[in-house]
Amino acid sequence: MVIVMQQGASAPQVEAVIDQVQKQGFTPFVNPGVERKVIAVLGVVDSQKVTLVDQFESMDGVERVTLISEPYKLSSRNYHPQNTVVEVGDVRIGGPEVVIIGGPCSVESREQVLETAHAVKDAGAKLLRGGAFKPRTSPYSFQGLGVDALKILAEAREATGLPVVTEILDPDDLELVADYTDVFQVGARNMSNFRLLSRLGRTDKPVLLKRGPSAKLREMLQAAEYVMVEGNHQVILCERGIINFDDACRNTTDINAIPVLKYWSHLPVILDPSHSTGYTRYVTPIARGGVAAGADGLIVEVHPNPSKALSDGSQALKPEQFRQLVQEVSRVAHAVGRQM
Amino acid sequence: MVIVMQQGASAPQVEAVIDQVQKQGFTPFVNPGVERKVIAVLGVVDSQKVTLVDQFESMDGVERVTLISEPYKLSSRNYHPQNTVVEVGDVRIGGPEVVIIGGPCSVESREQVLETAHAVKDAGAKLLRGGAFKPRTSPYSFQGLGVDALKILAEAREATGLPVVTEILDPDDLELVADYTDVFQVGARNMSNFRLLSRLGRTDKPVLLKRGPSAKLREMLQAAEYVMVEGNHQVILCERGIINFDDACRNTTDINAIPVLKYWSHLPVILDPSHSTGYTRYVTPIARGGVAAGADGLIVEVHPNPSKALSDGSQALKPEQFRQLVQEVSRVAHAVGRQM
Amino acid sequence: MVIVMQQGASAPQVEAVIDQVQKQGFTPFVNPGVERKVIAVLGVVDSQKVTLVDQFESMDGVERVTLISEPYKLSSRNYHPQNTVVEVGDVRIGGPEVVIIGGPCSVESREQVLETAHAVKDAGAKLLRGGAFKPRTSPYSFQGLGVDALKILAEAREATGLPVVTEILDPDDLELVADYTDVFQVGARNMSNFRLLSRLGRTDKPVLLKRGPSAKLREMLQAAEYVMVEGNHQVILCERGIINFDDACRNTTDINAIPVLKYWSHLPVILDPSHSTGYTRYVTPIARGGVAAGADGLIVEVHPNPSKALSDGSQALKPEQFRQLVQEVSRVAHAVGRQM
Amino acid sequence: MVIVMQQGASAPQVEAVIDQVQKQGFTPFVNPGVERKVIAVLGVVDSQKVTLVDQFESMDGVERVTLISEPYKLSSRNYHPQNTVVEVGDVRIGGPEVVIIGGPCSVESREQVLETAHAVKDAGAKLLRGGAFKPRTSPYSFQGLGVDALKILAEAREATGLPVVTEILDPDDLELVADYTDVFQVGARNMSNFRLLSRLGRTDKPVLLKRGPSAKLREMLQAAEYVMVEGNHQVILCERGIINFDDACRNTTDINAIPVLKYWSHLPVILDPSHSTGYTRYVTPIARGGVAAGADGLIVEVHPNPSKALSDGSQALKPEQFRQLVQEVSRVAHAVGRQM
Repeated sequence: MVIVMQQGASAPQVEAVIDQVQKQGFTPFVNPGVERKVIAVLGVVDSQKVTLVDQFESMDGVERVTLISEPYKLSSRNYHPQNTVVEVGDVRIGGPEVVIIGGPCSVESREQVLETAHAVKDAGAKLLRGGAFKPRTSPYSFQGLGVDALKILAEAREATGLPVVTEILDPDDLELVADYTDVFQVGARNMSNFRLLSRLGRTDKPVLLKRGPSAKLREMLQAAEYVMVEGNHQVILCERGIINFDDACRNTTDINAIPVLKYWSHLPVILDPSHSTGYTRYVTPIARGGVAAGADGLIVEVHPNPSKALSDGSQALKPEQFRQLVQEVSRVAHAVGRQM
Repeated sequence: MVIVMQQGASAPQVEAVIDQVQKQGFTPFVNPGVERKVIAVLGVVDSQKVTLVDQFESMDGVERVTLISEPYKLSSRNYHPQNTVVEVGDVRIGGPEVVIIGGPCSVESREQVLETAHAVKDAGAKLLRGGAFKPRTSPYSFQGLGVDALKILAEAREATGLPVVTEILDPDDLELVADYTDVFQVGARNMSNFRLLSRLGRTDKPVLLKRGPSAKLREMLQAAEYVMVEGNHQVILCERGIINFDDACRNTTDINAIPVLKYWSHLPVILDPSHSTGYTRYVTPIARGGVAAGADGLIVEVHPNPSKALSDGSQALKPEQFRQLVQEVSRVAHAVGRQM
Repeated sequence: MVIVMQQGASAPQVEAVIDQVQKQGFTPFVNPGVERKVIAVLGVVDSQKVTLVDQFESMDGVERVTLISEPYKLSSRNYHPQNTVVEVGDVRIGGPEVVIIGGPCSVESREQVLETAHAVKDAGAKLLRGGAFKPRTSPYSFQGLGVDALKILAEAREATGLPVVTEILDPDDLELVADYTDVFQVGARNMSNFRLLSRLGRTDKPVLLKRGPSAKLREMLQAAEYVMVEGNHQVILCERGIINFDDACRNTTDINAIPVLKYWSHLPVILDPSHSTGYTRYVTPIARGGVAAGADGLIVEVHPNPSKALSDGSQALKPEQFRQLVQEVSRVAHAVGRQM
Repeated sequence: MVIVMQQGASAPQVEAVIDQVQKQGFTPFVNPGVERKVIAVLGVVDSQKVTLVDQFESMDGVERVTLISEPYKLSSRNYHPQNTVVEVGDVRIGGPEVVIIGGPCSVESREQVLETAHAVKDAGAKLLRGGAFKPRTSPYSFQGLGVDALKILAEAREATGLPVVTEILDPDDLELVADYTDVFQVGARNMSNFRLLSRLGRTDKPVLLKRGPSAKLREMLQAAEYVMVEGNHQVILCERGIINFDDACRNTTDINAIPVLKYWSHLPVILDPSHSTGYTRYVTPIARGGVAAGADGLIVEVHPNPSKALSDGSQALKPEQFRQLVQEVSRVAHAVGRQM
C-alpha cells in the first residue's frame, strides 16, 4: 500500500500519517529526496486493505492511497483509460494527429540549426529537436555546446515558431535548460536516473522519456512513474531501439513496444527511427512502420550535411530526405486513420 | 575461392578439378553429402585469383568459380540486383503485390482446416499455412498429425484453390511432404539444419525460410545460400521474431530486418506477426508495420476457436479478426505503393 | 497427463490405451516417429488425476503415467535425486572426478589427430574429441572429412586408449557414426533437432548435448528429455556459451548454468571454454572458473598448430598450453573437493 | 587528438591553446562542466600528428596530448602495463590478495548493520558494504535511509575497523557521502551517468564502478575513463551480471569479463556474485568461479535474516553461509596462486 501525500503537506501531517502507520503495526518507509512525500507500507494483507485505504485517505494532507497490483500505477491505462494528450504550444501529442519532431543530433552552429529548423518546418515537422548537452560514451568525444546551444535553439524557435525539445543530463542544469526548452528530453542512458526523473516531475514542462537500451517496458513505465508521482503527468514515451546480438543495425527497433505501451498505458508513444536503426537508408521505412503500428509521432535526426556532423552523421537525413519521409509517413498515417 | 560444379558433373570431371587444385599446391575440400559438388580452395592469395578463376572456369563440368567477399553470395543483391519473384501457382511473392498467407498453427482436424481455409480465402489470403509436423520444445507436447494432416491440407487446397505451405522437419520426410505441399517451410529451429537445407536445394519447390530466433541476418542469408548453391533459388525469407531480454511479448519483432534484408538481398522478405508478438491483440498493428516497412507478405495464424487450439492459441486470430487485418494491411500496402 | 508405453509395446496394447483415453472423453495424441509410444492426454483436471493414473498404469504395455509439473521430467533432480554418472569405458563423468576431453575442432589429417591424441593423453585428458562432420554457417566453409575422419579418430583411440567423442549432424549418419564413436555429440545448432535427439535416445551410447546459443536452460533440459524418453538416460549436458550484445568474446560463458543445471537436474554438466570464449588467452582462466563453479568436466580444443587450423584456430590451445590448463584446473578441482 | 590541460590551468592558458587550434585550421571542442579542461581537436590527419603533438605539448598549461587508437586510454594496459593496486586504508585491491567485501544490500537499522559488520569481519571480509541511497525501479519501493544510514555505516566502521563502501546516486550528495564513506560505489544504473563520474574523478577516494547491465566492456572502460581523466585513477571495476534472454537467474554472470578486463586494463576487477545470480544457493559456486577466473575480489550481500530484508533478500547470505563462502573461496584463491 502506498500513501501519497499532497504536495506541500506539512511536516506534522506527514508525521501523523507515519504515527498511524506505526500504531497499526506496520513499518513506514518514506521516500527521501522527494518533495511530495510517498509513504510505503509494506506487508499489508488482503483482508486489511479496504479498511486501511479508507482510514488513511481520510487523514489530513493525504492525497490518495494506492493498492498496487501492477508495478506502475499512474501511467497505467487501468488508472486512466482514455489517451493522454500532451500539449506543447499548439501541438498536441497523443491525439488524432501524428506529430513529427525533426532537427540535428547536436547543435553545432547557429547556421546549421537555423537552416535545419526552417527546412524541417517547411517539410512538416511540428517541433525542433537539438542537443545542447550530449552524453557520450567517451570523455574525448564532443559533448555539446551547452548554454550556447540552448540560445541557438531559442533563436530558431523564434524564427520558425517551432517549440524546442532538448536533452537534460543533470538535475543541476534544470533551471538553465528550463529557460530555453519547451520539452525536456531524458536520454536513454538516463532512463534510470531516478533523481533526475523526480526533479522533472516537479516542473510543469512535458518530459520526453527515452527507453533505456536494455530496459523492459515495465521498467520504462516505472521510470515514467517517477515523474508522474511528483505531479507532472505530461510524459511522452519514446522507443529508440534496444540492444541485441546482431550488428546489422545500430540497435533493434522494438516495434512491438508501440502497441504494448499503448495497451498498457495512456501516455503518448513516439518512435526514434534514427537511433533505432543507425543508418540513413533504413530511417524512412522504419518511420513508416512505426506509424503504421500506431505510434503517435516520430523524432528524426536531420542535418544539412550529414557527412560533416559531429555526432551520429551516419543516421541523419538531409532536408530533402526528411521531406520525403514526411510525405511517405503522411500517406501511411492516413491509411491507419490518423491525421498529419 | 570456391569452384561450383555443374549439377550432374561426372566423377571424372570432379576428380580432374581436384587433381588440378592439388597440382597448383592447394588442398581441396569437397563438401560431403551434397549432390552438386562444391570444391573449396583455401589459402589463395590475391595475386593468384584472376589466373585461377580463368583456369578453373574453363574446365569441364565447372559451373562457376566464385571469389567471396561477402559471407553470402547467391543471395546477395550485388550478385542479382533485381528483386527475385517466387512463383507459387498464380501467386507471385516479391513483386508489386503484398501476399498474405493464413491458416492454423497446427492441423488439428479436417473441419478446422476446411473452415479456416475457406475463411482466409474469402478474407483475401493467397496461400494456406498449416503444420503437419510440429517441432515442440517438450516431447510431451502435441507433435502434429503427420501424414493425416498433409492429406487434410491437400483437400483444403482442392476445395479452395489456395496453394499450401507446411513445415518440413526432417530430410527423411522430404518425399512425403513434397507429395502434398506447394512450399516447404523451414522452421526457426531448423534454420541451421544444413543437411535439411541442402536437400531442399535439390527440389524444385519454393522454400520459406524462417529466421532462427538468435540468428544474425548474415547467418540467415548463409542459410539461404545452402539452399541456393544446390540450384533452388526460390527462397522466401521470413522474419518471425528474435529472442530478447523483455517478456512483454513472446519475441521481439525485428522490423529492421525487413529493410536490411531487402537491401542486402534480392530475395522476397515476409513477416510472421503471430510468432513475433505472441498475442492476438498485437498481430494486426505489427502486420501493418511490417508492410509499411517494406515486407513482401505476411504469414498469419488463424484458428476458428483460438482458445481450444492445440498450439499457439494465444496468438491466433479468429477469421473475423483476420478479415479485419487484411483490410487494414491493404490500406497500408496501397499507401506505400504496393498492390493487394 | 502422459502415458509412456513400454518399449516394444504391441500395437493392440497401444490401441487399447488409446481407446480407453477416448472412452474417458479425452482426445489422445500419440507422438509420431517415436519407437516408444508416448500418449499425451490433454485437459485432465486435477480431481481426475489420481483415478486416471491408477487406471492407465494397470493396463498392459504401459510403463508409467506421469503428471507433469515441470516442463522436464526424466532429467529432473526431483525425479532422480542422486547424480547420474555416465560411463564411457573406464571413464566416469558426473562422479567425484573432473574429466577433461581434449582434441581438435576438426579432424584435418591422420598426423594432426594422432599427434594431438598422444599429447592430450599425456597431459591428462580422458577422452578425445574431434569433428568429422562440421556444421558451418557458410556452405563454402570446410565441412569436415566425414568418414575418413571417423576412421582416423578410431585409429587414435586404438593408439592411445582414449574413447572418442564426435558430433553427429544427421539421423541418417547414425549407424555410420555409431561404428566409430564412443559418445555422440549433439552440437549447439542441433539442440532443437528433435528428430535427431529421439533417434539418439534409441541408441545405447552416451550423448553429449551442447546448449543452443540462445536456449534457455529449461529448454535444454527438455531437449535432454527427448533423448531420455526413448530410453537412453546417458546424457551429458554441456554449456558452450550463449549469444550476447558484447563482442569482446565469441560468446558469453554462462557460468551460472553450471550450478543451475546441477540444482535442477541429476545429469552431469561440463563446460566448453573454447567456444564459450573464442580466444586462446581466455580458455584457461574460464576452465578454472568452470570447475570451481562445479563443472563435472571440460571439453577443450587443442591443435598442434592453431594458426593453420581449418576451423576455430583462434580458440585452440597448443599441446603445451593444454598441459598447463590441466595442471591449473587440477589444483582448482582439488580445492573444491574433486579428484583429477 | 586530445589535449588534456593541467588541473588548475589558467583561463588564458586554455584560451591560448584554443587560439592555436583555430590558427591551425581546426575547430576546438572544449568539454563543458569539467574542471580539468580537455580540448578535442577533430579531423587531424595522420601526417600532421607528430608535429601537432610536439607543438601543443610545449604550450603552457598543457599536461599531455593524446592520439587515441583505442576508445579508452588511461584505463588501458597499453598505457600502464603493471596492475594498479587501489588502497583503502590497509587494504590493497588488485595486488596478490583476494579481497572480500561483505554487508547488507540496504542499511535497514543500526542493529542489523552492526551485527552484520561484526559477522563479516570475523568471517574474513576486509571491507563493509551497505546501501544508504538505493536506486529502485519503482518509486514505491524502499529507497534507503539516506544520511541516517551513512551514520550507521560510520559507526560500524568504528566498531570493526572495516572501511566502508556505499553507493552514490547524485552528484549533489557528493560531499555528504564523502564525509562517511571510504569508497564511492557507482551502481549499474549509473555507469553512464557521466556527470557523476566526472565529479567523482575530482575526489581523492576510490571509485567502485559497477558495469551497466547491458554495457559492453569497452563502454565500461570508457566510463572509468571519465573518472580517470579528471585525475582520480583509483577505480575498481565490478562485474555484476548482464541482462539476457533466460530467466533461470536474475542476471547472467559474465565471467569472461574478468580475464578480458584484466587483459585490456590495469585496473582491479572484482565480481558481485549476489546480483549476478540473484539466488543465495548460487552465490558461493559463482564466487569460487570468479576467483578461479582471476577476480581480485568479491562483493557479497549478507543479511542476518534474509527473509526479512527490505531489498534483495533472495540473494543474501546469512552470516554462517558467508563464513562458508570465505573458506571455500580461500581454498580456490590459494589454488590459483593468490593470497587471502
